[in-house]
Amino acid sequence: MHSDSKSAPSIVVIGSCSVDFTTYAPRLPMPGETLHGSKFSTSFGGKGANQCVAAAKLGGNTYMIGRAGDDQWGLKYKEHLKAEGVNVSHFFTTPNVTTGIAQISVAESGENQIVIVAGANNFLSKSDVQSSAELITHADVLIGQLETPLETTLEAFKLNKGVKLLNAAPARSDIQQILQYCTILCVNESEAALITNMEVTTLNTKQVLAKLLNSGCETVVITLGEKGAVYATKADPQPIHVFCRSVKPVDTTGAGDAFVGALANFLVKHKDLPLHQIIGAACEVATISVTKEGTQTSYPSNIDAFTNKYDFIKL
Amino acid sequence: MHSDSKSAPSIVVIGSCSVDFTTYAPRLPMPGETLHGSKFSTSFGGKGANQCVAAAKLGGNTYMIGRAGDDQWGLKYKEHLKAEGVNVSHFFTTPNVTTGIAQISVAESGENQIVIVAGANNFLSKSDVQSSAELITHADVLIGQLETPLETTLEAFKLNKGVKLLNAAPARSDIQQILQYCTILCVNESEAALITNMEVTTLNTKQVLAKLLNSGCETVVITLGEKGAVYATKADPQPIHVFCRSVKPVDTTGAGDAFVGALANFLVKHKDLPLHQIIGAACEVATISVTKEGTQTSYPSNIDAFTNKYDFIKL
Repeated sequence: MHSDSKSAPSIVVIGSCSVDFTTYAPRLPMPGETLHGSKFSTSFGGKGANQCVAAAKLGGNTYMIGRAGDDQWGLKYKEHLKAEGVNVSHFFTTPNVTTGIAQISVAESGENQIVIVAGANNFLSKSDVQSSAELITHADVLIGQLETPLETTLEAFKLNKGVKLLNAAPARSDIQQILQYCTILCVNESEAALITNMEVTTLNTKQVLAKLLNSGCETVVITLGEKGAVYATKADPQPIHVFCRSVKPVDTTGAGDAFVGALANFLVKHKDLPLHQIIGAACEVATISVTKEGTQTSYPSNIDAFTNKYDFIKL
Repeated sequence: MHSDSKSAPSIVVIGSCSVDFTTYAPRLPMPGETLHGSKFSTSFGGKGANQCVAAAKLGGNTYMIGRAGDDQWGLKYKEHLKAEGVNVSHFFTTPNVTTGIAQISVAESGENQIVIVAGANNFLSKSDVQSSAELITHADVLIGQLETPLETTLEAFKLNKGVKLLNAAPARSDIQQILQYCTILCVNESEAALITNMEVTTLNTKQVLAKLLNSGCETVVITLGEKGAVYATKADPQPIHVFCRSVKPVDTTGAGDAFVGALANFLVKHKDLPLHQIIGAACEVATISVTKEGTQTSYPSNIDAFTNKYDFIKL
């Protein structure tokens, strides 16, 4: 638990939480069909909370600004965040609305289909930002994503005086306005493609990064799955590709969120280290998470990711 | 609550319980897709428990023999049954198994797709029947369905000395062995078609009913949705068609279960009335249930369905 250590740099996440209901069946159901599945699981998800828990498990002094419904799930989620060491003083409840949920069907082939009901996540508002103004303004790292209203995240980013880290997921193209307030933009290849309207290949990474840096952010990180990540900064626009360890993946759900939460944590914990080592360590945390089942349950606790040196090349 | 009234005739249900997780979205998700829905609801379902609750709400002295997992849902379901007035002394828990669930996606068109994970329902066993032998043997009505292992229901039907009511749903064809132990078989048109291997039309109802009566049961009821029900008995094989009131349906989920639970209740409560009036009253309960949203929540409480006389014709 780190919520009481007032001197530790603060990592504040403003964003989504949702409960994932997942069934596993031989194949996906077709319209009109009732199919028998083999397994059912309930787990804590939502990109915002995932990233917050990832940072908390690594020992970060984390705060979650979010909204849940006044149903059993809202209460459970708050208790869960507390148990993971997240400060929930700014985790709010919306009456008469359900907590966000994701209904996920997974086939034996690994193919899935998902229905998301955003519920209370849609109610995270500018007035929540105002009532959390002190916390947001002085956050050492403020993390946002795109599963809660964009104008709310924008309002928070305008206030903050620290590092503003935007994970522009799920993919959408209409986020130009907020990019000028971002210190770090973190996206995967398809999100980068949608924002820049460019195909992202190994050959044009430099152009894509340049276009994104032009939008206003100081640093852009594109995560590449098992191939690691590539990044560039305004100060040094030459892309650097950081590699990650090769593993046999068991469950890749939430690996991107593990990366974002770890990145935030290492940014405040290891300010002195070069960015390629920090990004390498965040890749390592994501890599560990894909070797285990589950989302938040697959995130490592209090590992020292800096015993390794991470390989990188300038492109 | 009727579980203490030892003199009241007992209605014992052996069967399934499951928790329904339902999302509502503009359309059904496709493989690989993440779709945004508008609403999420959690409700109590499973044909066995639905029928038991339908009978309990009408004032029946009901017992539920079933199995849930040792998760939060198992505990919740037991509490729920108690609150509905069902005796849960023979409602068992299976460790390390999830409670049965149904993951339901509903499109605006009304079309749905369902993944069922039977979980603890698969563990309802012959030894559960043995440990409930006293209750089962002396039940005034024993109700079974096909969402729990068939050999378990068969074992229970062999013991019982009262009215054995089988609702042969969901549809399957390999139930010949249990039919000889049934007092009443209750099926819809597609279930009747699958058991008899005959198309069911208004023209051949008599032949279908005759074939089903030949399988051993004393009475066969085929429910016809908004058109009511048709039945015949070994004593009087001429089919009787009972009509029901016409309503604008809001949600037909669980209407068949309302019919079965009401039928059991009225059979013990109004032994003196002719069967066509009892079936008419059970149709009325099902009709009321389709005018409200939800499954068990749409079942009426303590109504007097016998203030009406129900129309019928001999076919």
